[in-house]
Amino acid sequence: MAGSKFAYVKGFEIPDPLLPETFLVCRLDGHAFHRFSDQHDFVKPNDERALKLMDHVAKNLMSEYKDIVLGFGESDEFSFLLKKSTKLYNRRHAKILTTLTSYFTSCYVFLWSQYFPDTPLRYPPSFDGRIVVYPNERIIRDYFSWRQADTHINNLYNTVFWALVQQGKQSTTEAHATLKGTVSATKHEILHSRFGINYNHLNERFRKGSVIVREELSPDSSLTHTETTKTLADGCSDVEATNDPPVVKKKSTFKTMINILHCDIIGDEFWNARPYILSQ
Amino acid sequence: MAGSKFAYVKGFEIPDPLLPETFLVCRLDGHAFHRFSDQHDFVKPNDERALKLMDHVAKNLMSEYKDIVLGFGESDEFSFLLKKSTKLYNRRHAKILTTLTSYFTSCYVFLWSQYFPDTPLRYPPSFDGRIVVYPNERIIRDYFSWRQADTHINNLYNTVFWALVQQGKQSTTEAHATLKGTVSATKHEILHSRFGINYNHLNERFRKGSVIVREELSPDSSLTHTETTKTLADGCSDVEATNDPPVVKKKSTFKTMINILHCDIIGDEFWNARPYILSQ
Amino acid sequence: MAGSKFAYVKGFEIPDPLLPETFLVCRLDGHAFHRFSDQHDFVKPNDERALKLMDHVAKNLMSEYKDIVLGFGESDEFSFLLKKSTKLYNRRHAKILTTLTSYFTSCYVFLWSQYFPDTPLRYPPSFDGRIVVYPNERIIRDYFSWRQADTHINNLYNTVFWALVQQGKQSTTEAHATLKGTVSATKHEILHSRFGINYNHLNERFRKGSVIVREELSPDSSLTHTETTKTLADGCSDVEATNDPPVVKKKSTFKTMINILHCDIIGDEFWNARPYILSQ
Amino acid sequence: MAGSKFAYVKGFEIPDPLLPETFLVCRLDGHAFHRFSDQHDFVKPNDERALKLMDHVAKNLMSEYKDIVLGFGESDEFSFLLKKSTKLYNRRHAKILTTLTSYFTSCYVFLWSQYFPDTPLRYPPSFDGRIVVYPNERIIRDYFSWRQADTHINNLYNTVFWALVQQGKQSTTEAHATLKGTVSATKHEILHSRFGINYNHLNERFRKGSVIVREELSPDSSLTHTETTKTLADGCSDVEATNDPPVVKKKSTFKTMINILHCDIIGDEFWNARPYILSQ
Repeated sequence: MAGSKFAYVKGFEIPDPLLPETFLVCRLDGHAFHRFSDQHDFVKPNDERALKLMDHVAKNLMSEYKDIVLGFGESDEFSFLLKKSTKLYNRRHAKILTTLTSYFTSCYVFLWSQYFPDTPLRYPPSFDGRIVVYPNERIIRDYFSWRQADTHINNLYNTVFWALVQQGKQSTTEAHATLKGTVSATKHEILHSRFGINYNHLNERFRKGSVIVREELSPDSSLTHTETTKTLADGCSDVEATNDPPVVKKKSTFKTMINILHCDIIGDEFWNARPYILSQ
Repeated sequence: MAGSKFAYVKGFEIPDPLLPETFLVCRLDGHAFHRFSDQHDFVKPNDERALKLMDHVAKNLMSEYKDIVLGFGESDEFSFLLKKSTKLYNRRHAKILTTLTSYFTSCYVFLWSQYFPDTPLRYPPSFDGRIVVYPNERIIRDYFSWRQADTHINNLYNTVFWALVQQGKQSTTEAHATLKGTVSATKHEILHSRFGINYNHLNERFRKGSVIVREELSPDSSLTHTETTKTLADGCSDVEATNDPPVVKKKSTFKTMINILHCDIIGDEFWNARPYILSQ
Repeated sequence: MAGSKFAYVKGFEIPDPLLPETFLVCRLDGHAFHRFSDQHDFVKPNDERALKLMDHVAKNLMSEYKDIVLGFGESDEFSFLLKKSTKLYNRRHAKILTTLTSYFTSCYVFLWSQYFPDTPLRYPPSFDGRIVVYPNERIIRDYFSWRQADTHINNLYNTVFWALVQQGKQSTTEAHATLKGTVSATKHEILHSRFGINYNHLNERFRKGSVIVREELSPDSSLTHTETTKTLADGCSDVEATNDPPVVKKKSTFKTMINILHCDIIGDEFWNARPYILSQ
Repeated sequence: MAGSKFAYVKGFEIPDPLLPETFLVCRLDGHAFHRFSDQHDFVKPNDERALKLMDHVAKNLMSEYKDIVLGFGESDEFSFLLKKSTKLYNRRHAKILTTLTSYFTSCYVFLWSQYFPDTPLRYPPSFDGRIVVYPNERIIRDYFSWRQADTHINNLYNTVFWALVQQGKQSTTEAHATLKGTVSATKHEILHSRFGINYNHLNERFRKGSVIVREELSPDSSLTHTETTKTLADGCSDVEATNDPPVVKKKSTFKTMINILHCDIIGDEFWNARPYILSQ
């Protein structure tokens, strides 16, 4: 064959299997989204349209890749947990990483106009990704606790910051100065006393991030979507009614559906109600 | 900080620097594009709209990432060469790989309607990617020869195959059987005698693939785009006049532009005319 | 500094940390020991001197590297388990691997004459090594079961094989032919009926391999070495009285000693009696 | 087979091929040799017996592993260059690294008494090792320049330091203080004016380190060892007459021998006289 004398170059492709029987977390981050959010007039401190778009994209990714058992998103980042037994692409690192990153990106652009009907994309957004290998359940729990604690910290800061700027008429420099070194309680106090905002009453999507979870339905389940959701949402106070229809799939006799929640995942309740997330 | 007791999970992120002073080739491939091309009615054996879209996307990627000095595309795949001195993202493997894959994908969806105005995307397309490290110029030459030889082999086969099916009224099974074991000369002969097609007169884009190259203009160049292109296109017989304006950038006193060519890159002429591709 | 313009070459040293909180197994194998054992007149099928030398070397390695919590040896190979919390050399792969391999080799040559006083080394023996990362306790159990099952299979085969050759006067070719396709029971039967050997009465060192274990003594222990050993040897039928004094170390108030056992490690008894091996 | 249900643990052994067509440098370092040299009464600043032992070991390693084309040693470290085309152990990282480290260590202990007949080894010495991948000739030149520049810097410092201590009766603290911040010329001056030592007349082994090189003899060579050495030693002023016989091997019609030199390898002369080192 004409190409055969060059084909040796394939020998430079080094195999990159990920360690078997370990959990894989794929985390995607918006690339230069500070600029992207400015250019597309995202509402500060949280743009609900942008967050819902991210959630929808994440749900699509989990619908396409069944071995993702959990997603957690905040701001312009999303983490996805692949079950430890996954054999996706024979656990080839680059193949899994790029396929997930690419499909996520594609969905983001594809679905954009659904959430921003009046704001055409000015340029193509992109995401970077990484896969981290974790050996056991405890560390996975800590990983997701880490992300949700980060959500809380960032959102509290940003909420006070933008209140100072938007309602308090401080410059951004002044607002940063006001907040410098303040502890959490002080930030709550500023919000409450100066702006009449009770932080704990704010949208849970902002405070808790988004938890995308594949729920298993019992084989003989004849429940409707709404009922099912109520049944399954143990440990979550605000299961969201999404406009798009639930993704209901058959797997042998089990059905699963993908739900978007905004609940605590640091405590045990969420996990105890869904032992299948970490056991597979 | 609230999150600090969980932050140890970051310690599981293993550094992944790529070997310094080596060439990096990033190759992207369409994911399940056989189905994608069917669902979007791509013309067989080559859909010029789809190929031009790929070229445009590749050009955008090279415009955004200056360290890419060469691109080569065929069908639903594209290879990009990063200069060996690149310090992009400190040569972190996953960061480079995912950023390029994501931006490429994003541009593909973003630009789709420009090339398929009457064919809305039915679902989000995606690409997988890999980075291969190559130690020297000779192997890089062989890498690109490998891809262009592959273009030739595939295109010749596909051209005869679809002529047998579309004009010869063979079933796809019959067409495969007709071609089984035939050498290149036989395929040329079938095309010529049965369908009056001189393979060598077919569109060079189909026969040679697309070569996207960042050309350096001399500092005092006052040439117009068209003239410049003619001057620079040594070794290529059909520099393409693109509709979108050339990307002309300043780098110190040098200007560069990104051109799309469909020329031979197996022989020396292309490379001798552009020593800067491999020397950086 | 004179050397500074060359120091950039250090930048090609790629960091190689092993995944945190995973068990590390370092397995060493004799290099070309078939020839080595011939050249040094090892007794077939098992040379007790050679096996005791290996055990002594392994014990020395574990005495020097405290994070090794278990060793298992058979023939010319030894596996060492590093506790999952080990921070040895910051878990740098090559550093750990080469240091253990080198020290093991060095001890082997250093101690040779103690076990082969009348057989000078004819040339320097060497070992290769590898480190394998395992995520959890269950797989570590299976790893050591794998090695001990291998010991059994090899030793049974070799025992019959050499009986056929040495006592049965078969050629090695004939002996292989006799054994071809035989199951375990047949091999036992040949040993018993033709050579009067009850396999289960053979030296446990040969049948079970060597288990080197760091035993923890209770803080207030005033037991003598022999008594302690008896107490600790739960699950093992033949704790060996070694000539060299036990290695007794203080760690806070705990004392540990390294014992050489030849017991079953496939069942639960060994592990249940020593929970600290897998828990650290 | 009895072991088969456990054999899955082999699946955790991740392949580790080194990039093809790149130079491999394996560098070995004595482990805790500061203590080792104290315990074995090494002469300061250089112990010729210890250095000759290292050279002999290196020569043995190169005699055993033909793909090593160059060695460079100083103090307790040695670097070995494997030719870029090497297929040794299919370029498996851990296999090459541990085999070389183990054999080097083994030879060191094996040959010890030949160089230290009156100083028995008090404990087993060990070495750590690493393999670094380098893409081209220029960087290999710089690598060896880096090591030889280091030899010079260290040796000049140590020579003055020990002169101050041994002849100048300074304490080690005082000697370090005397040298702090001094440039090279000052150190030469101290040696000359205070101790009558012309640094450039000192043993080249100390000043240049040891260069172990496999020399190719022409096919029809009928030269004696001594003559050959003279012929081949271009670029080196002090080819050493070794007591052990030269290693002369046949490779097709070529013969090679391994020589120990103490010459400059920073300039071009050494390399120009031996183009085969970097060309293979």
